[in-house]
Amino acid sequence: MDKQNIFNNIRVVLCQTSHPGNIGSTARAMKTMGLSDLYLVNPLHFPDPQATSLATGAADLLESATVCSSLQEALTGCALAIGMSARKRQISHELVNVREAAHRAASLAQNQPIALVFGTEMSGLSNAELDCCQLLAMIPANPEYSSLNLAAAVQVMTYEVRMAILEGKLDAADNQPELATNEALEGFYAHLEDTLIKIGYLNPTAPKKLSERIRRIYARAKLEKEEVNLLRGILTLSVTPKKHQKY
Amino acid sequence: MDKQNIFNNIRVVLCQTSHPGNIGSTARAMKTMGLSDLYLVNPLHFPDPQATSLATGAADLLESATVCSSLQEALTGCALAIGMSARKRQISHELVNVREAAHRAASLAQNQPIALVFGTEMSGLSNAELDCCQLLAMIPANPEYSSLNLAAAVQVMTYEVRMAILEGKLDAADNQPELATNEALEGFYAHLEDTLIKIGYLNPTAPKKLSERIRRIYARAKLEKEEVNLLRGILTLSVTPKKHQKY
Repeated sequence: MDKQNIFNNIRVVLCQTSHPGNIGSTARAMKTMGLSDLYLVNPLHFPDPQATSLATGAADLLESATVCSSLQEALTGCALAIGMSARKRQISHELVNVREAAHRAASLAQNQPIALVFGTEMSGLSNAELDCCQLLAMIPANPEYSSLNLAAAVQVMTYEVRMAILEGKLDAADNQPELATNEALEGFYAHLEDTLIKIGYLNPTAPKKLSERIRRIYARAKLEKEEVNLLRGILTLSVTPKKHQKY
Repeated sequence: MDKQNIFNNIRVVLCQTSHPGNIGSTARAMKTMGLSDLYLVNPLHFPDPQATSLATGAADLLESATVCSSLQEALTGCALAIGMSARKRQISHELVNVREAAHRAASLAQNQPIALVFGTEMSGLSNAELDCCQLLAMIPANPEYSSLNLAAAVQVMTYEVRMAILEGKLDAADNQPELATNEALEGFYAHLEDTLIKIGYLNPTAPKKLSERIRRIYARAKLEKEEVNLLRGILTLSVTPKKHQKY
């Protein structure tokens, strides 16, 4: 197993970052842990001299960073998106600590790209951004003061990822089914929503609340590539049943 | 065992820090991990508005920090001083990674004070400072770029200490929604299978293979009680759509 491949399959995605210095500090944190693939979703200021200054010897990561206009775009090709959360959320995403999340990330990244997703400095990931993730990871911080600096959170998470990769206690790669990509999942969600509207379950004028709940169910299921095809086959039939069943 | 006592027995010692911002960021990192005892050996600028600014909600640690004129003074009462090192040294200190060091620190701190000692931003701990330590701890960083920011190194080390004290158990008990019972799940599976037969997806004479695959998807999703009701509502409508939709 080539460990460099695992590092190459792990990207860090920063959403709506306000302070360019944090982008630079994130690049530095990533590089110290052997990661190089940085995605920036709508950064407030980038490129910026403050980012370059705080990156110190990791400015190359800023130069090769990918700037995106949506989180979906930043997750292209990813089999798993892990959202970082500083607090417990009243939602039903699967929540694990960063050590467990890092093991899953390192294990999956043997075969497919995965993403570590970080929200804004002030409020973290929005609910819409969380809906693009399949797993929530939490640093078990002091409940009385859990506010890690953004780059500090990146440092801890990428440190755990590096430890997981170097310790080599990863699940056997050949035992893992191929997970559905982010695009395949989004295609399924769109198909599902369309079907639910057609059968009268969803109100197309106000479908938001329900859609989120349904997305979370399937996010937790970590659908495989073939399972998405299976489920979409069901959706197709639920709108147009076979007219002449043989059985 | 009172875990708060363990946290209280662990101090962070910064030696000859050049940038006051790093002192503030260190205070923030410490507080997020539940530590509060900060010692500063000959800081270049302290107190300083930049330190206060970067400490954000952890400025109380700066106010209660102890400024010393020697490392020995900062180590008063300590049973163990763990020196942080970014690189391997040609010396005969015992060298372990931060995870192992954190376990030893947490274990000893049940009874006695211990210190985590950090050197200057540019060159780390001097040989004279290392001589005051009994153990060297290293973050297993990228050998091609191992330069963690000072506060980032403090964040990783204190995170490991917190994990060691908490034994990695994430306290998420009050975040857990009520899961569906086995009976509720079986009712859902039966309903689903029946629906799939009705829409012509499943062959009722040989449905076994497909049913197992579908069960696995929902088993992995660990469905909540309310989610089962939601999914069964969908099933009902997929067979008998609302005749007169309002929307």
